[in-house]
Amino acid sequence: MGFIKPSNVVGTMELLPNEQILFDNVKNIIEDTFKKRGFLPIDTPVFEKNEILLAKGGGETTKQIFKIDSESKDISLRFDLTVPLARYVAQYFSDLNFPFRRYHIGKVYRGERNQKGRYKEFYQCDIDVIGNGKLDIKNDAELPYIIYEIFSKIINEKFAINFSNLKIINGLFENLGVDNKTDMLRIIDKIEKIGFEKVVEELKNTGLNDNNLEKITEFIKISGSNEEIIEKLNSLGIKNALFDKGVEELKEVYNCMKLFGIPEDCIKINLTITRGLDYYTGTVYETFLENYRQLGSVCSGGRYDDLASNYTSQILPGVGISIGLTRLFYQLLDKNLFKEIKTNSIDALIIPMENCYDYAIKLLNKFENSGKIIQIYFEDAKMKKKISYADKLNIPYIIIVGEDEKANNTYTVKDLKTGEQSTVDFEGLIKLI
Amino acid sequence: MGFIKPSNVVGTMELLPNEQILFDNVKNIIEDTFKKRGFLPIDTPVFEKNEILLAKGGGETTKQIFKIDSESKDISLRFDLTVPLARYVAQYFSDLNFPFRRYHIGKVYRGERNQKGRYKEFYQCDIDVIGNGKLDIKNDAELPYIIYEIFSKIINEKFAINFSNLKIINGLFENLGVDNKTDMLRIIDKIEKIGFEKVVEELKNTGLNDNNLEKITEFIKISGSNEEIIEKLNSLGIKNALFDKGVEELKEVYNCMKLFGIPEDCIKINLTITRGLDYYTGTVYETFLENYRQLGSVCSGGRYDDLASNYTSQILPGVGISIGLTRLFYQLLDKNLFKEIKTNSIDALIIPMENCYDYAIKLLNKFENSGKIIQIYFEDAKMKKKISYADKLNIPYIIIVGEDEKANNTYTVKDLKTGEQSTVDFEGLIKLI
Repeated sequence: MGFIKPSNVVGTMELLPNEQILFDNVKNIIEDTFKKRGFLPIDTPVFEKNEILLAKGGGETTKQIFKIDSESKDISLRFDLTVPLARYVAQYFSDLNFPFRRYHIGKVYRGERNQKGRYKEFYQCDIDVIGNGKLDIKNDAELPYIIYEIFSKIINEKFAINFSNLKIINGLFENLGVDNKTDMLRIIDKIEKIGFEKVVEELKNTGLNDNNLEKITEFIKISGSNEEIIEKLNSLGIKNALFDKGVEELKEVYNCMKLFGIPEDCIKINLTITRGLDYYTGTVYETFLENYRQLGSVCSGGRYDDLASNYTSQILPGVGISIGLTRLFYQLLDKNLFKEIKTNSIDALIIPMENCYDYAIKLLNKFENSGKIIQIYFEDAKMKKKISYADKLNIPYIIIVGEDEKANNTYTVKDLKTGEQSTVDFEGLIKLI
Repeated sequence: MGFIKPSNVVGTMELLPNEQILFDNVKNIIEDTFKKRGFLPIDTPVFEKNEILLAKGGGETTKQIFKIDSESKDISLRFDLTVPLARYVAQYFSDLNFPFRRYHIGKVYRGERNQKGRYKEFYQCDIDVIGNGKLDIKNDAELPYIIYEIFSKIINEKFAINFSNLKIINGLFENLGVDNKTDMLRIIDKIEKIGFEKVVEELKNTGLNDNNLEKITEFIKISGSNEEIIEKLNSLGIKNALFDKGVEELKEVYNCMKLFGIPEDCIKINLTITRGLDYYTGTVYETFLENYRQLGSVCSGGRYDDLASNYTSQILPGVGISIGLTRLFYQLLDKNLFKEIKTNSIDALIIPMENCYDYAIKLLNKFENSGKIIQIYFEDAKMKKKISYADKLNIPYIIIVGEDEKANNTYTVKDLKTGEQSTVDFEGLIKLI
């Protein structure tokens, strides 16, 4: 019989244990930071009913859905964590407390073509705050703080949370009487990729009249410090209630972000952010590593008017932020941007000599509540092989227990980095390791 | 437009946040206990290629697989964590260190019919030790210790790790020249459900000769203390090398389990365990709650000869144990068997009065490295509603900050259990909460 070639599905993440430990540690940092601010965990099934997943209908996402081939053909793998959240909140509405602050870390699925940086299965780490009827704008400032905290913990690189408020640009268009708003926004959204000049050219080609082109150009050209940007927005002379509301919210979120403790240089008002227009209605966020803009946004999100309108007449406004962890992990690993995060998982390897495994197990038992991670190497092998096992797993210490040690109630411990070796009692051992 | 009824797929687990926190805490206890013994994490995709999943062919499991309806129709959801482990070990063989000790906590999928206690999606928590060529028998004793530790931490109930060694019963059959071994084992496996008498009757109906029936009956009737059982095995008078080897291994595992520190009353040699015969070849385990035998085994596993024979000529013997966490969770919750495990996730709720949210955020910032979980209630609502929010989330303290507190640099804290209220400075606050 021939062998089957062992391979995982292309476009799925799979790591060797050392990298998996790093991944898990990063995931735990994210989860702990979410928890610390009182976000509650939810966990929904990886599959949902099609009527739920496809409720919004159409769009690119629908084409990429993995359907389950069952008799009833009615379930598919989720493509994000927002649809499950909306379904969950509507389903358990009367049991939940609002504002409902939840986090969800889980895998989502998209039938992407095989291509570097595209994943069929990837982790999303989402937090959202959902209000019942209304939701205070200050929530829009707390989420970026949480993102600030997470990125401060995992990388040493400079990053900035870019944000805007879609009411501003929508108010501008409303004021100018632009009707093909969606096209405009799609063009403006490309500014990061194609640059200011090309965006202006493309805007011109849509047949905008000169006055409108000038106003929009003036708008997207706005730059300077955050204070200056707000100043310039005020002096644009746009008379529109939506625009004014947007500027007011933007200011409040900005001031509140600083109150929460995000340093000024990690905050960047960026009026050209137009992401996910079908969905977001107010504050929008994108986060960039200053020296690695080409990686794109590493964390995005925003404010939406109504989470669960497909399922309920309750008005559920919310604000959320999402980290696409799998892609981010590979990017940071590839560019070596992670802070030093512990990846060795075993503190010491106990190596029993012949007939001394009972003494070795007793030693293991002594470590029980020490907080140390200890393993016994039980296999019959040459000492060289045992030490090589410890080396490959980055285990810093080996503890050799033989007849002599057993007779004297001692342990011989060797530091595999320095090569230093000493024979000590258990107290000595605990001090060393 | 009508609303879509929000509902999750039948047979999937979904919890409200408080229960989810309990579930996560139990899962974390399991994971931490695995880690403490030097088991390394792996995480494989939720789907695998069909050629991998169906390599063994046939069987009940195959019928229950969820296939993905893609153009190529070549991937499905995994039905356990063992097939992915085998594939993973074969695929990364040269990068892994043996014995390879891995844990894997993840969801698996089975197209079970809708029925209480059956899940289409459920968590498995697996540990396995895989040797390269050979694997010391003492590993078979360390895994039950880990299981002992986990159950000691999560429940107060009496439980016993039942175990046997399949070489014993296979050696017995070999010795007796029984050829329809599989039928015999299937009958014996039912002893827990149908009782000793019925098993003997069914064995008789298979056409066993009197001598063999007597020998087998004598064998499955063996009872007493663990020491007595080993004694009786020795005195059965079976002359068979496989049988002898099994008894020898059983004894060593038993002695070693005690060395690891499992109390005698949590260990039960049980010769009628015959689980998963296609797969297991030596030690086998099942764990029962003494007062809830009807729940069935809450943790099972065993020793196998060769993990990855479908993929490689390397001989990879292993031993593993698996907890079906989703089912276990509901069972323990239903019977109220969990130890007191913390489920409130927020330590205090800061409630700012009008125009005092800046002072509230500054207070939140002070808690930054305190290890406390603190939330601000930003929403505009009556005090009664805010307190009710804290109550429903089991938040023990609210901290009210208003103009007076802001002027005096103090905080008014209220214990929601006792109703006691006091005004303190930050040091006082930290002491209280």
